[in-house]
Amino acid sequence: MPLQKHHQIVSVDDHLVEHPRVWQDRVPARMKDAAPKILEVNGAHQWSYDGGIYPTIGLNAVAGKDPKEWGMDPIRYEDMIPGCYDPAARLKDMDLDGIEAALCFPSFPGFGGGMFHRANDKELALECVKAWNDFHIDEWCATDPARYIPMSILPTWDIDLCVAEAKRVAAKGSRTISFPDAPVPLGLPSFHSRHWDPLWQVCADAKMPISLHFGSGAYVPGFSFSAFKPVPGQMPEIEAPFAVAITLFSTNLMWSTVDLLFSGALQRFPDLQFSLAEGGIGWIPYILERSDFVWERHRWYQKIDFDAKPSDLFREHFWGCFIDDEHGVKNRHQIGIDRIMLESDFPHSDSNWPNSRKRAAEVLADVPDDEVAKIVELNARKMLRFPRLA
Amino acid sequence: MPLQKHHQIVSVDDHLVEHPRVWQDRVPARMKDAAPKILEVNGAHQWSYDGGIYPTIGLNAVAGKDPKEWGMDPIRYEDMIPGCYDPAARLKDMDLDGIEAALCFPSFPGFGGGMFHRANDKELALECVKAWNDFHIDEWCATDPARYIPMSILPTWDIDLCVAEAKRVAAKGSRTISFPDAPVPLGLPSFHSRHWDPLWQVCADAKMPISLHFGSGAYVPGFSFSAFKPVPGQMPEIEAPFAVAITLFSTNLMWSTVDLLFSGALQRFPDLQFSLAEGGIGWIPYILERSDFVWERHRWYQKIDFDAKPSDLFREHFWGCFIDDEHGVKNRHQIGIDRIMLESDFPHSDSNWPNSRKRAAEVLADVPDDEVAKIVELNARKMLRFPRLA
Repeated sequence: MPLQKHHQIVSVDDHLVEHPRVWQDRVPARMKDAAPKILEVNGAHQWSYDGGIYPTIGLNAVAGKDPKEWGMDPIRYEDMIPGCYDPAARLKDMDLDGIEAALCFPSFPGFGGGMFHRANDKELALECVKAWNDFHIDEWCATDPARYIPMSILPTWDIDLCVAEAKRVAAKGSRTISFPDAPVPLGLPSFHSRHWDPLWQVCADAKMPISLHFGSGAYVPGFSFSAFKPVPGQMPEIEAPFAVAITLFSTNLMWSTVDLLFSGALQRFPDLQFSLAEGGIGWIPYILERSDFVWERHRWYQKIDFDAKPSDLFREHFWGCFIDDEHGVKNRHQIGIDRIMLESDFPHSDSNWPNSRKRAAEVLADVPDDEVAKIVELNARKMLRFPRLA
Repeated sequence: MPLQKHHQIVSVDDHLVEHPRVWQDRVPARMKDAAPKILEVNGAHQWSYDGGIYPTIGLNAVAGKDPKEWGMDPIRYEDMIPGCYDPAARLKDMDLDGIEAALCFPSFPGFGGGMFHRANDKELALECVKAWNDFHIDEWCATDPARYIPMSILPTWDIDLCVAEAKRVAAKGSRTISFPDAPVPLGLPSFHSRHWDPLWQVCADAKMPISLHFGSGAYVPGFSFSAFKPVPGQMPEIEAPFAVAITLFSTNLMWSTVDLLFSGALQRFPDLQFSLAEGGIGWIPYILERSDFVWERHRWYQKIDFDAKPSDLFREHFWGCFIDDEHGVKNRHQIGIDRIMLESDFPHSDSNWPNSRKRAAEVLADVPDDEVAKIVELNARKMLRFPRLA
């Protein structure tokens, strides 16, 4: 009997929309004018930051709306249900959805902090990163420490600042770092570079897994999209419907995963862990089989580890999650039953809210009880060091 | 009892290396000097064409070599086994491998003719395209019309020339067109454009499927590679090992497939067919489930067909193939048993030569006889209108 009452669902991928005071309440006084603040422009709420105006306050915040009304992002806070930006209201939305605990990614900063990475004023950007982390840990998660899981972003443009901030948030109780799935398109060194080793060391020491959310590197997959530099909150004007990119976003994480599997970083940092957020899991058996096939043939002459089989590395260093992935669930043992988690993706369009639990029960209908427990709860609690309170 | 003696294997993805006279024997006399010809340069055979020198005569032609010696492309014809470039010798290599019939993609032109697409002299390029097609049909395939399947490339830079050449090769008996999997990175309109409709009309009328070979659009997947414009025959000097790109090449075909599924072209041309060459099949169930999931939610407001379910379109318009894909074979009914074919990829590094038949028997060990017949032979013969001779 799958998904019974005693199974708590821990979602490893949800999203919050920042309220207007997140940065204004936290950055030094002299920076407040340039720091993110909400303006009223022709009846719309817009973010003003670092000299730019960003019309989208709640990118893809569609929870509670009819799909016929999707496609227009909310232009005022009142266009969203309060659970998008109010952590107390969110708890009630989670109750409705049957979700016990949630890991909430940023909105305005980008899932991996790309907004601050691209900003001109780096002194301000660093304060903005810290402010988001403090907001998330001290305000959002403090609302209910048993149900909200602390996450942090980093000043990705400077490795020393990354290390310092990672240490700071680890000490504050952060359970995971949201890092760009695609560093190279952001102008950063690839996962093959030793550039990141000091950060990996901190995360490994602190047992803080790295969450790679698809799209967090501001890279949009698909031939029609990948060449464009997306402007946050704006869809590029191209012929392909954006449904193509939405469908393909998990190919970002295929790329990130294979990069890491062949990077050597996993061997240098045995405790380093990566969570593939919103990537689905149905592609994993194919990518692992293909990785092993290529490794078997090309390890003889290429600069890749001769001894470390990619699929073994995956099952020691990666965690996948899904919303609605029947093929993945059916093939869960080819992925690794200890490495699969659930997500609800509230308030985005992939979410089944308010039916996440109901849909999970359907997808997991043929899965034995002990495996269901791992998938919906135990694996996430283990990865995030977020035990159930007695 | 799978893969019995009466099952002939028809491989839908192999490669030939052009011999030195392919173009010199065919282009008009005044063009011969600029047309592809082989030069002796410091003991190496190199292609000279359109003002450039191309050191690789047999890109990735490793058949018969120890993997420890891979990584260096052959520098002289004598470095390859003759079956790479001699169609009579190839038949013996196919006999060794247990392959009855083969579809052979180009080497020097690129899998989809990208070399001629990028050339400066377009008048010459058109003659070079025609010369390759004539060589392939009149010389290579004529060696044994029961075992070689005619394929053609197109002058992709001009839709009217594409249409004219497609009509010409259809009349000459070509069974498929090799077309770039990634038109956009080549500077061409995407699959969402009506630009290609006249070509799709010719192919649909002639029942000529379009073969999309991964990499045929000169697009190399992976964050470290996708931003680079690859130079044919040269690996870009970047930190990531090329094993990453080799592993990920099928993501190109995921992108191509999803582009086409959401393009509307399949609905406009019910007889249009696409073959995904060297893409593997293990990813298809995931991508179809994900495509349906996105279509179900986003068809209400996006410019996509409200009524045509992507997975239905796939099973009416696409054919996949594999070399060694246990996950795909296990999940073959989620793909479509009438839509899966085999490939041997001779003489490239993915190939199991001379054990293609032996390995196929292992992978198909648990597959019923009638399904094996479809996968190794009947589906390919149907797609390519290439019946077994009595």
